Amino acid sequence: MNTIATHSQVISPRNLLKHWQGHRALTRRVIDKFTERDFFEFSLAGMRTPAQLTTELLAIGGPALKAIVERNDQPYSEAGLDLKTKADFLAKWDEETESINEFWQELTVDDFDQTFNLFGQYEFPIIENIFYFIDNEIHHRGQMYVYLRALNTEPPFFWER
Amino acid sequence: MNTIATHSQVISPRNLLKHWQGHRALTRRVIDKFTERDFFEFSLAGMRTPAQLTTELLAIGGPALKAIVERNDQPYSEAGLDLKTKADFLAKWDEETESINEFWQELTVDDFDQTFNLFGQYEFPIIENIFYFIDNEIHHRGQMYVYLRALNTEPPFFWER
Repeated sequence: MNTIATHSQVISPRNLLKHWQGHRALTRRVIDKFTERDFFEFSLAGMRTPAQLTTELLAIGGPALKAIVERNDQPYSEAGLDLKTKADFLAKWDEETESINEFWQELTVDDFDQTFNLFGQYEFPIIENIFYFIDNEIHHRGQMYVYLRALNTEPPFFWER
Repeated sequence: MNTIATHSQVISPRNLLKHWQGHRALTRRVIDKFTERDFFEFSLAGMRTPAQLTTELLAIGGPALKAIVERNDQPYSEAGLDLKTKADFLAKWDEETESINEFWQELTVDDFDQTFNLFGQYEFPIIENIFYFIDNEIHHRGQMYVYLRALNTEPPFFWER
């Protein structure tokens, strides 16, 4: 990243982390709105259950950021996530919140426009990979909002972070 | 925005516009996947139809960016959007694509962390308002993905922009 480029940017690493963690806090509240049973069993239109969607989010967020910091292009995997209850998922979610906060401190400003082959498969500037994590979470959480509505459960306000 | 702050930012205005327009291109493809009838009539769980959700997106995106550039705190309104067919919506979408590209050029780097009271109601740094437009679009588009799945229609790939 050259000097001219660093002069004309619009969000700081710190504010981007705050933005991401704000979304993660909302997703946590959405997860928590499901009953134990619905979290593992409910779905619409043959799509994944909340537990399956959350597993994907857990397999990306923290692990992907760690992989970026360590420049480790290990493949995407949900294998280590042996979570049996909603409480297990929420505890893992909180663990990843801390992990993200810690690994974020290892990123320098210059890292964000460096290219990295995430999961050995997604070769993009790191800022694009991070936007992808956030966008993918919003996308799947939007689907979980429909599930909650279908279950007659009022979802949290979208703007509450 | 002081000099230190501008030195430590992670995305340029140009790349943020590209990111947003990439999402808007995907949303356009999602809109286009609905049949004329389903676009205006289908919904799940008592939620808004695709046409109603798209109306909200059209009432934010371009008009909100114009309001930011002109520092006009006019209230949010869907009143001017008298769209009768899916083709009307797509034409309006394309018009807003151009409008966003044009008004974006009026934003200076320093504008992004200035506070503005969008729609006379959302007083935040402009960068946060712009993230909100993008995130809100991803959120509602995620809901439209569920609608498409429920209609046995394959949605576009999420990563296609």
